[in-house]
Amino acid sequence: MNQEPATPCPSPVTDYLDGIHKEYSGLSEGRVATYIPELAKANPNWFGICLATAGGAVYEVGDSRQPFTIQSISKPFVYGLALEDLGRPAVLEKVGVEPTGDAFNSISLDPGTGRPRNPMINAGAIATAGLIQGKSPVIRLKRVLESMGLYAGRELGLDEGVYRSESETGHRNRAIGHMLRNFDILTEDPIPVVEQYFQQCSISVTCRDLGVMAATLANGGLNPVTGRQAIRGEYVESVLSVMGSCGMYDYAGEWIYKIGMPAKSGVAGGVIAVLPGQLGIGVFSPPLDSRGNSVRGIAVCNELSRHLDLHLFNNPSLPKAALRLKSTGAELNSSRVRTPRESQALREFGAEIIIYQLQGNLTFATCEPVIRDVMESVGSLGYLVLDFKRALSINESACRMLYQLLWRITQLGKSVLFVHAEHLALLRRVMKAKLGAQYNELYRVFDDDDLAFEWCENRLLHSVLPGWDAESSASHRDYDLFDGLTADEIAQVVPLLKRRIYQRQETIIRVGEEAAELYFVARGNVSVILTLSSGVSKRLATFSAGMAFGEMAVIDRAPRSAMIVADSDVECDLLSLEDFERLSEAHPRIKIKLLENLGLGLTRKLRKANRQLSVFE
Amino acid sequence: MNQEPATPCPSPVTDYLDGIHKEYSGLSEGRVATYIPELAKANPNWFGICLATAGGAVYEVGDSRQPFTIQSISKPFVYGLALEDLGRPAVLEKVGVEPTGDAFNSISLDPGTGRPRNPMINAGAIATAGLIQGKSPVIRLKRVLESMGLYAGRELGLDEGVYRSESETGHRNRAIGHMLRNFDILTEDPIPVVEQYFQQCSISVTCRDLGVMAATLANGGLNPVTGRQAIRGEYVESVLSVMGSCGMYDYAGEWIYKIGMPAKSGVAGGVIAVLPGQLGIGVFSPPLDSRGNSVRGIAVCNELSRHLDLHLFNNPSLPKAALRLKSTGAELNSSRVRTPRESQALREFGAEIIIYQLQGNLTFATCEPVIRDVMESVGSLGYLVLDFKRALSINESACRMLYQLLWRITQLGKSVLFVHAEHLALLRRVMKAKLGAQYNELYRVFDDDDLAFEWCENRLLHSVLPGWDAESSASHRDYDLFDGLTADEIAQVVPLLKRRIYQRQETIIRVGEEAAELYFVARGNVSVILTLSSGVSKRLATFSAGMAFGEMAVIDRAPRSAMIVADSDVECDLLSLEDFERLSEAHPRIKIKLLENLGLGLTRKLRKANRQLSVFE
Repeated sequence: MNQEPATPCPSPVTDYLDGIHKEYSGLSEGRVATYIPELAKANPNWFGICLATAGGAVYEVGDSRQPFTIQSISKPFVYGLALEDLGRPAVLEKVGVEPTGDAFNSISLDPGTGRPRNPMINAGAIATAGLIQGKSPVIRLKRVLESMGLYAGRELGLDEGVYRSESETGHRNRAIGHMLRNFDILTEDPIPVVEQYFQQCSISVTCRDLGVMAATLANGGLNPVTGRQAIRGEYVESVLSVMGSCGMYDYAGEWIYKIGMPAKSGVAGGVIAVLPGQLGIGVFSPPLDSRGNSVRGIAVCNELSRHLDLHLFNNPSLPKAALRLKSTGAELNSSRVRTPRESQALREFGAEIIIYQLQGNLTFATCEPVIRDVMESVGSLGYLVLDFKRALSINESACRMLYQLLWRITQLGKSVLFVHAEHLALLRRVMKAKLGAQYNELYRVFDDDDLAFEWCENRLLHSVLPGWDAESSASHRDYDLFDGLTADEIAQVVPLLKRRIYQRQETIIRVGEEAAELYFVARGNVSVILTLSSGVSKRLATFSAGMAFGEMAVIDRAPRSAMIVADSDVECDLLSLEDFERLSEAHPRIKIKLLENLGLGLTRKLRKANRQLSVFE
Repeated sequence: MNQEPATPCPSPVTDYLDGIHKEYSGLSEGRVATYIPELAKANPNWFGICLATAGGAVYEVGDSRQPFTIQSISKPFVYGLALEDLGRPAVLEKVGVEPTGDAFNSISLDPGTGRPRNPMINAGAIATAGLIQGKSPVIRLKRVLESMGLYAGRELGLDEGVYRSESETGHRNRAIGHMLRNFDILTEDPIPVVEQYFQQCSISVTCRDLGVMAATLANGGLNPVTGRQAIRGEYVESVLSVMGSCGMYDYAGEWIYKIGMPAKSGVAGGVIAVLPGQLGIGVFSPPLDSRGNSVRGIAVCNELSRHLDLHLFNNPSLPKAALRLKSTGAELNSSRVRTPRESQALREFGAEIIIYQLQGNLTFATCEPVIRDVMESVGSLGYLVLDFKRALSINESACRMLYQLLWRITQLGKSVLFVHAEHLALLRRVMKAKLGAQYNELYRVFDDDDLAFEWCENRLLHSVLPGWDAESSASHRDYDLFDGLTADEIAQVVPLLKRRIYQRQETIIRVGEEAAELYFVARGNVSVILTLSSGVSKRLATFSAGMAFGEMAVIDRAPRSAMIVADSDVECDLLSLEDFERLSEAHPRIKIKLLENLGLGLTRKLRKANRQLSVFE
């Protein structure tokens, strides 16, 4: 049997499970099942525990790789396959979902229709087995094995010895099969269906398998270890519902009350328990109590539930769960470098731009506080930026609420921007369906938060600064670095400048180049672009006419650390490092002024960076 | 009746509920209950919906303020009060928790013990009423009213007309009372207990009350509107468990299967449903179906569950839920300004410092991915910083796992720092209990992440830089700003410097002062402190011997924007702005060198700030 590669140091979680395992090894009550002779051969000391998380971590201790037969734990998984085959209404017609308060082998058919009360009692499980689609018994068994293999993350097979033993002694279940045929719940010869039921019960699994199978249910049907879907997500809630209300037979109410997780046990000594969204537990220990549940299995589930606070109804509340960060354009700006006049306007009016960074799984409950917060700020809002970069998933109801929010906000004449939403295909689909012809106009998406901020800022500057234009040109006396120089002094520097023309998207500076010039933007905009190790490009800054760039590498003599690209057709004036150096001797006053202005620009950038840092902290 | 202040613009959530209300107003099936004559007077058109979140938002539409009697919806709340009065074991002795699959008025007593099967059927509710403590019937009723008032967030009273009507016609319930007395489940005269039961059913509530009551259960027993605790949190899971398994009588299995929320209905037309951790729903509409449940109540809960994805077993998974940000000391540094040699060492070895920012509700499931990640990095780890600033809550199991993590990491000779954990009293208690005598030594807490980072950095620098000391002194030629000046040039500047001595904690610069000097640290450390609008002090930077400070305000001539304080006994050299200005004329070469060094310092700070910003983005 393959072992996982050993971790360099055991996890505190494994430590904890080891402690539980040691503690309950001493619990020697219960008796190994004997009604199927083959099961009586089990070693009563076998004892494994596996805890697998919805994030794909698997912790296992004890005899977690010892094979045994799944028995009744197969019932919820086969029920799920029946739901996928026929859909909920057709399955509900044949098998109910009401708990009976009766024991596992009670027949519990509805007196009128013969419909078994639920799929967790044998009668209901046999009726469910009869719903599995496939032309022949061989194909049906194959489909059941494949389905369970997806949950376990490995190929599963039958324990033929146990199967023969089940089949030889399964008279009561054959009787149930015939009763179901009598009521037309089974519509064909019941004997092959009952055999198929014996086979599904004889599938050989390990405790580790059970943990991963349970975690797959906890993870919406997606096996978190293999990343493969074992059952369509929409049916998981139904499988867990019948486990929750009927999984532990006449112990179901007390189980939910005390342990609080949908669960299922099998007479070979297996138990699974599922905490939706969080984790799955598998326990294996053959000795059973009088109800047919593994004694240690129940004890360990109880201990884990109590110690790890796993009770379904003991959830901490979720206020602000989706809201990672709220900020405004007065604090958080795009990386476009602004003139003092622009910066002043953004500080004054930037609060109209409100930015929400959303995170985690977006549902009605996690999004509602964000929507409420938006509506409370709606008076002062002009531009709403919703950044989904850290949203892990979104469900239909969250999409619908965001649509309603978008609609209301745009009706008020304000703009809504959706940023980094490309991984949320459902959001796009819902918006398309709801907005129809207005989709392109109203569903405004940006794949970069920085560009979204700049879009809002530019709109805002247009509206508050008369004559402001996003693209402009500057004459020499408008150059920031020349502030405070006399016309004569400027005239002494200008001959040192070399004019260069770049086309839109042309690269002006490459990473790694030696810093040999200081650049002045005479016309157009240029951007500093960093290529991250992930290959993603990130804009660090954008400069417009009148600004200088490339000064940091000139000052600290480091090679160029980022690429600089022309955003538009651009004209630049270049001052070579040598000429800049030589000014110290030839025109020290000019040099001093230039250095002072460089210091001023750096100071402004540093103040802006510090302001942004304080938002994040 | 008081109305909430009108919001300036209706919320998208209210819009949505309005749509549901309109849609189901047309549903006219069902009949108003008549078996209690007073109830027959209800207007069948009354229809209210209230959705209240665990975060305290209350959305209501329709007749949400119309009073009616609570009826059987009182049962789970009184059950909760009995649990608080007597504890779980004593209550379980008198009333079971198994669903019966029977109708609401079935007697369903255990044939041997006479114990009612569960507290949601009348027999169980009457037995529960008999458990409420209090010397007299008046006191017991008062306690029930007070308890329910805490859930509703307002004082509640009886509808006397309905109570009289219930009492006059309640023969079946009196029979149940005598049966319970027969079995010694009730140990006193059953008649006053049955009267108390009639009274609890006659409490007058509104649909809004029901929504808030349900939200209180969703929020762990804490009323999210008033902030007052209605029931001890530990009993909420038990109340929700009996609602989940038995709340809808013989419809319970199907309800959980379809709607998937613990719920309870009353014959006056009320329904509550609870999605733990998220929200509560109250619906009011008098016409009932054949099982005694409000027709519109069920339809609306079904619609909300389906549309808002509220099914209990349909949770998205929680991977990385608690991990807000992971970073290392190679990317994220304390605000202590470092020399180039120190910076180089931190870039090289800083990865040994690993920082986790945790967020949200810390439970086993949300913390496990963090613990796993730590264990995977444990080889390269030297210092583990856990920042709890954004953790909303922590439960016992998360505390226990963090203790085990702390223990394992410190046993490996590494350091663990807990930052901003002051609001997590449980964590402190668990650590104290588990660590015992080693608590003070091992549970290393910092109330500021920045100071925690600096502690790690200083330790690291001690270990990798021979002779390094956290507090030092510098001679004039060690001053960063004098780099590149000849000994002669330094000798020309030194007479301009004025030595000042400050004592530990003395203020060196105050906010708002005019920037009149540039400072050089000759000995000790100084910190830049910003007082936030919240009144909290935040360290922006710390400078050590040889560094200059106060230069930004000197450059941009802004008033001092932060306070500067001596961290130790400090000596500084001050260069007045006038003398600095005058250097341009007298010693332009010196001035140029000083300005170049200033630019270099600013460039380094800006590069560091940009590096930190990229961590946050």
